Amino acid sequence: MSNRVYLDWNATTPLRPEARQAMTAAWDLAGNPSSVHAEGRQARRLVEDARAAIAAAVGARPQDVVFASGGTEANAMALTPGLRRGASGPVQRLMVSAIEHTSVLSGGRFPADTIAAIKVSRTGLVDLAHLRALLAEGPPALVSVMLANNETGAIQPIGEVADIVREAGGLLHVDAIQAFGKIPLDIKSLGADLITLSAHKIGGPKGVGALVLTEPVQALEPLLRGGGQELGRRAGTENVAGIAGFGAAAKAAMAELAANAVRQQGLRERLEKGLRQATEIIVFSEGASRLPNTTLFTVPGLRAETAVIGFDLGGIAVSSGSACSSGKVQPSHVLAAMGFGGELAQGAVRLSLGWSTTEADIDLALEAWRKLADALLRGRRNTA
Amino acid sequence: MSNRVYLDWNATTPLRPEARQAMTAAWDLAGNPSSVHAEGRQARRLVEDARAAIAAAVGARPQDVVFASGGTEANAMALTPGLRRGASGPVQRLMVSAIEHTSVLSGGRFPADTIAAIKVSRTGLVDLAHLRALLAEGPPALVSVMLANNETGAIQPIGEVADIVREAGGLLHVDAIQAFGKIPLDIKSLGADLITLSAHKIGGPKGVGALVLTEPVQALEPLLRGGGQELGRRAGTENVAGIAGFGAAAKAAMAELAANAVRQQGLRERLEKGLRQATEIIVFSEGASRLPNTTLFTVPGLRAETAVIGFDLGGIAVSSGSACSSGKVQPSHVLAAMGFGGELAQGAVRLSLGWSTTEADIDLALEAWRKLADALLRGRRNTA
Repeated sequence: MSNRVYLDWNATTPLRPEARQAMTAAWDLAGNPSSVHAEGRQARRLVEDARAAIAAAVGARPQDVVFASGGTEANAMALTPGLRRGASGPVQRLMVSAIEHTSVLSGGRFPADTIAAIKVSRTGLVDLAHLRALLAEGPPALVSVMLANNETGAIQPIGEVADIVREAGGLLHVDAIQAFGKIPLDIKSLGADLITLSAHKIGGPKGVGALVLTEPVQALEPLLRGGGQELGRRAGTENVAGIAGFGAAAKAAMAELAANAVRQQGLRERLEKGLRQATEIIVFSEGASRLPNTTLFTVPGLRAETAVIGFDLGGIAVSSGSACSSGKVQPSHVLAAMGFGGELAQGAVRLSLGWSTTEADIDLALEAWRKLADALLRGRRNTA
Repeated sequence: MSNRVYLDWNATTPLRPEARQAMTAAWDLAGNPSSVHAEGRQARRLVEDARAAIAAAVGARPQDVVFASGGTEANAMALTPGLRRGASGPVQRLMVSAIEHTSVLSGGRFPADTIAAIKVSRTGLVDLAHLRALLAEGPPALVSVMLANNETGAIQPIGEVADIVREAGGLLHVDAIQAFGKIPLDIKSLGADLITLSAHKIGGPKGVGALVLTEPVQALEPLLRGGGQELGRRAGTENVAGIAGFGAAAKAAMAELAANAVRQQGLRERLEKGLRQATEIIVFSEGASRLPNTTLFTVPGLRAETAVIGFDLGGIAVSSGSACSSGKVQPSHVLAAMGFGGELAQGAVRLSLGWSTTEADIDLALEAWRKLADALLRGRRNTA
C-alpha cells in the first residue's frame, strides 16, 4: 500500500510500534492469567500493568478499569438498568443523545420503552434544555452522552451535562472512545460516572476496550458471566496480548497528546482551507469545538459513496460518516439528528487525521479532491 | 522461562508460529473491515479468510461462523431463549450438564428458574436417562453438553445426546472448546445445532472465539448490538489480527490433529504409568474415552494447591482443575458432580499435554512428582 494516504483515523488507526512491541512480548508468555504457576503470574502481571496504564490515562483507580472486547461491549456493559451511585436510587430509564454511536443507541440492557433520545442542535451539540425536560419527567435515569462525536468531531458540553444529571439524581455515562488520546480526559473532572474507551482508536489493537467506573458506582451487572475475571465483572480469559497493546498505546498516546493535537489542528486547517479553495463546502459542526483531527464536509449535490470511491481510486482512504458498521451506505443518523435531511446527510465525507499524517498527505488529498470535485458534482447535477 | 516444562495446555496453549505470522501480517493493515476503501477491504479479506478456515475445520458454512471475544462470549451468545430450528417451537428451557464450564453453567440469557442441571456418572459422563426425564417434563429445551470436559478430558456421548434431544424437539449446543483440535469434530456428524470454539486452546490468541451454527438455527438474538458486523449477529469492530490468528491456528491444528493425538496419547500413557510407579493414584474418568492429552489425578491426602505450587517450584506448570477463573482455589464443581466430595475433589491435579510436549518433559514432571509426592502426602497425613 505504498503511496497511499490514510485519512480515516476515526474509523481505526494504524497500530503503534509501542503496542506492537508489547503484544509481541505478550505472545512469548504461554500462561493463562488465572493460573497460579509462574507462566500464569507473568501473564497476570501484563494485564495488571496495562490496567494501571489505562487508569492513569483517565485519572481512575486501576480496580475501576474493566477490560472488554471493544467499545461496543464496554458500552453494552455500561448501559445497565439498576446502576446506582452511593445512596442514590437505581436508574430505571436511559437517555442517549441522538448522535451517539449505534452501540449506545441500541440501549444496552434497557427495555426499548425506557429509552429516550436527547435532541441535538444544528451544530451537533446536545440540547441541554431537552435533557433537563426529559430528566424532570420520571424516575432516576442513566444519561449517555459521548465526549466527542465520531463523525463531526463535535465536543459535547459534558461538564454542563454532568451538573444537570447529578442535580436530577441520575448517573452519567460518557462514551469517550473517539475523544480519548485526542483531547485531555480525566474521569473526575469530566463529572462522568462511567466512561468507555477503545484501543484501536489510539493505536492499540482492534478487539480491546474498557469500561472505567468511578468508585461510587454500584450494581454493574456483568454481561459475560462464568469465571471470576475482572473482579467478577467480566468473565472470560483475558485478551492478554491485546490488553498489553492497549496499555502501551495509551501510554504513548498520552505522552504525545498535546503535541499531536496542535500539529493535527494545523493540518486540519490546511485541509479545510484547501477544500474551500477548490469549491464551496459545508463543514459540519464548524461552529462547535471539534476534535483537532476531524473534518466532516459536503457540497450540495455530492454523493458520499461516489466521493469515497473516487478518493480511494486516487490513493486516499476516507470515509462517508461512521464506518463502524456493515459497510452499507446509509444516511448518517448523526446528520439527520442535526437536522440535515436527504441529500446533505447522504453527501457527507469524513477526513480524519492521525499522528503520522503529514503536510504532503494533506496536499495529496487536496489534489485528489480538486480532480474529483468538479467531475462528481457535474455528474450529480446531470443525473439529478 | 528456560528449563520450564509447561503441562497446562488445557488452560491455554502457547501461540503457534502460524498464528503469530498471520497476526503480524494483519497488524500491517490499517483498515477497519467495515470501511469501503482499499485498506478496509484488505482487513475484511483477512476476516473472511479466517471465517472460511474455521468453517472448514468443523464442516460448517462460512456464513454460519460468528466470531466473538472468546469461548465465554460465544457460550453466552449460544444460550438464547427463543432459539428454534426450522419449524420447531422456540426453546423455553435450558438443560446443562453439571460438568459444563462455568460460562455455560451461568445459563446465558435464560432466567435461573428455567435452567436444570443434567447429572453425570462417576466416570464423568452425562446421564442420558436423566436427560430424557428432564426433557419429558415440559416445553422445548436447549440442551448444552460439552464435547470433552476441560478437567477430566472425558469425551461425552454427544451422538446419543443429539438423538435424544432431537427426538424431544429440542436444540443441542455443544461447547467444543476443549475438544477442538484434539479430536476430530464435524458439526453435522456431531448432531449439534450450535457449537462454540476458542482460539487460545488450539494455539491461537487469547480473546477470540466463535459460535458456529447449523443452517436451520434461527432467532439467535445478538448479545452485542449496534453495528451490523457478523451479519448483524455480533456488533463491534472485529478483532482482525486475533481472528486471522485463529484461522491460521485452526488450519495448523487440523493438519496435525491425527499425528498429535497419537503422539500425545503415547506421552500421556508414559505419564500415568510413571505417576503410578511413584505412588498409587486415582485417575478421574479413567473408564471413559478421554482427550489424548489430559490426566486429572489425585491421591488421598493430596492438597491440589500445594501440589501445583510444588510442581511450579520444580519448574513444571500444572493446574488444579479448571484454571479459567479468578485463580481462587475452589473445590472442582466437575468432581463434585461426579460424586467426589471433600478431600478427593480438592486434591485433583491436572497435567495436560500439547504439540510441543516431549518425552523429556514427561520425565521431568515425573521426577518432580516423585520428589513431591512423598513430602506432600506425608505432610498432609501429619497435619490431618
